[in-house]
Amino acid sequence: MTASIHRLSASAAPSLDPIIALVASGMNQVNAVILDRMQSQIPLIPELSGHLIASGGKRMRPMLTLATSSLLDYPGTRQYKLAASVEFIHTATLLHDDVVDHSDMRRGRKTANIIWGNSASVLVGDFLFSRAFELMVEDGSLKVLKILSNASAVISEGEVNQLTAQRQVATNEDQYLDIIGSKTAALFAAACRISAVIAERDETVELALDAYGRNLGIAFQLVDDAIDYASDTATMGKGVGDDFRDGKMTLPVILAIARGSADDRRFWTDAMEGRRVSDADLAYAQTLLVQTGAIADTFEKARLYGRRAIDALGMFPPSKAKAALVEAVEFAIARAY
Amino acid sequence: MTASIHRLSASAAPSLDPIIALVASGMNQVNAVILDRMQSQIPLIPELSGHLIASGGKRMRPMLTLATSSLLDYPGTRQYKLAASVEFIHTATLLHDDVVDHSDMRRGRKTANIIWGNSASVLVGDFLFSRAFELMVEDGSLKVLKILSNASAVISEGEVNQLTAQRQVATNEDQYLDIIGSKTAALFAAACRISAVIAERDETVELALDAYGRNLGIAFQLVDDAIDYASDTATMGKGVGDDFRDGKMTLPVILAIARGSADDRRFWTDAMEGRRVSDADLAYAQTLLVQTGAIADTFEKARLYGRRAIDALGMFPPSKAKAALVEAVEFAIARAY
Repeated sequence: MTASIHRLSASAAPSLDPIIALVASGMNQVNAVILDRMQSQIPLIPELSGHLIASGGKRMRPMLTLATSSLLDYPGTRQYKLAASVEFIHTATLLHDDVVDHSDMRRGRKTANIIWGNSASVLVGDFLFSRAFELMVEDGSLKVLKILSNASAVISEGEVNQLTAQRQVATNEDQYLDIIGSKTAALFAAACRISAVIAERDETVELALDAYGRNLGIAFQLVDDAIDYASDTATMGKGVGDDFRDGKMTLPVILAIARGSADDRRFWTDAMEGRRVSDADLAYAQTLLVQTGAIADTFEKARLYGRRAIDALGMFPPSKAKAALVEAVEFAIARAY
Repeated sequence: MTASIHRLSASAAPSLDPIIALVASGMNQVNAVILDRMQSQIPLIPELSGHLIASGGKRMRPMLTLATSSLLDYPGTRQYKLAASVEFIHTATLLHDDVVDHSDMRRGRKTANIIWGNSASVLVGDFLFSRAFELMVEDGSLKVLKILSNASAVISEGEVNQLTAQRQVATNEDQYLDIIGSKTAALFAAACRISAVIAERDETVELALDAYGRNLGIAFQLVDDAIDYASDTATMGKGVGDDFRDGKMTLPVILAIARGSADDRRFWTDAMEGRRVSDADLAYAQTLLVQTGAIADTFEKARLYGRRAIDALGMFPPSKAKAALVEAVEFAIARAY
């Protein structure tokens, strides 16, 4: 790991501030749609949805829809409902993920499944998912509907794939990239791609924005998976070592297994299969991950995907929106440093 | 309860045979779409989906789409994909329901959540739900998409409402009718209504088919809820008394509470709150349900909703399809006798 990978540019530490500033007024519109459409006659629905939605997530995906719309100088207002729709899909996924992973913390708060139970989280997730489709239908573009319904199917395939790979030490890097490409990057890609549709730009633009979102999503997930071993609870807002205890076959672990001794492999097998998951085991795992360069190489791979995301924007002329989108990538891959 | 409520007509016992015969060749097309679209690179998805889908459900909802298309002499083929989409929504709901209710039996087989776990059922349900939307998008009618996405949102609202009402003895008949109107009747209504859209008939026809499906759905659920106390496991394909043990506030219980003594109400409170759920308690509950006329009146109410479903078809001229749709209602409300 050299200094050069810490930043793609030489300026101050990258931040989300430019993209946040770019989309600030638009996000007010999106948040209004979100608040309006999570309402229901059934009080538990806004209560549970609001707990997660108001918990200070970054709202990366709707911000990307707005920022890419801005990149294309789209003059209309369709992006607000669609960005809300994207966030609803994401929120539904998080609610179901936390049930699947038995998570007790997210964004520094108790998860909905801990407060209201698994059943409520499953059903309110279904509600938000349906609401997402209602918003898309109101927008009225079959092309947008196709992109987002396909992304939804791919996300759930990725989630099932991840579940299947859980505790399976034989999982390899290709399978891992498949999983994160589906469960994370597909929605990033769709969130960006739909801007090209509403701005009525040609397929080249659609594919460029898709590639930007997809590569950013992969970079984002790679960094998340690295800092699950490299961070503390306060930074993550969720428990550090969650992936370790869940036996999630993330890239750091896959690399450490490939590069480790026979003893290491026995340790990882015991750990991923749930027989060695104490704090001391986690500390030992972290040592192995550093020693083998697995963490460093995961970050390095994130940097390369981030670079591809930025390169995908090559066809667009310089603008505030482009600069903000570039810096969002730099932020995503610099989070750990 | 008099003999007259056993049948709406005087002929032989009503059956699903006419509707099954009417849609038999169409259902082959629908089943082919279902089998094709439940496939995935992730083996667990077709495995788990297939377990439930091949388990011999009646496929009432897709049959209704086909039968109502036939009623309107719709000459095209769009109903096949849409009927498959409706069945996918239903299947996704069943998978999630069984997780929510901790069910271990459905259609006489172990539930998917028992075999593969809750996580797999939640995620594969999400996949089928996404696939349902992909099928609708392929069909390409925004009007159909609106009807079915709205139905999906209403279904999940109904499911959350039911969860909220669980173990709450204060739940009344209006709330109960709200719940079953949402969780069951909304999809029956949508399954029928979309036929009017693809056959390009006017709103009067849409509303008539909607009313047929909605009232049939309510009748269907009322009978289901009555025979949960009046049947045995072999007949139901799921455990008798499931609703009792889950503390579900179904109409039989609501009526028995309203009509019971103070002692009865104490019993029902203890039972619905989970403190009296032995086999002896269930037997006692069944006695109270019969004594108060709660079961008989639930069936009687089902008959009246069934009558409304049949009346909604009044505008259509006699045909094989109409006769089959009428007899399907008669079958639904005669199931318990």
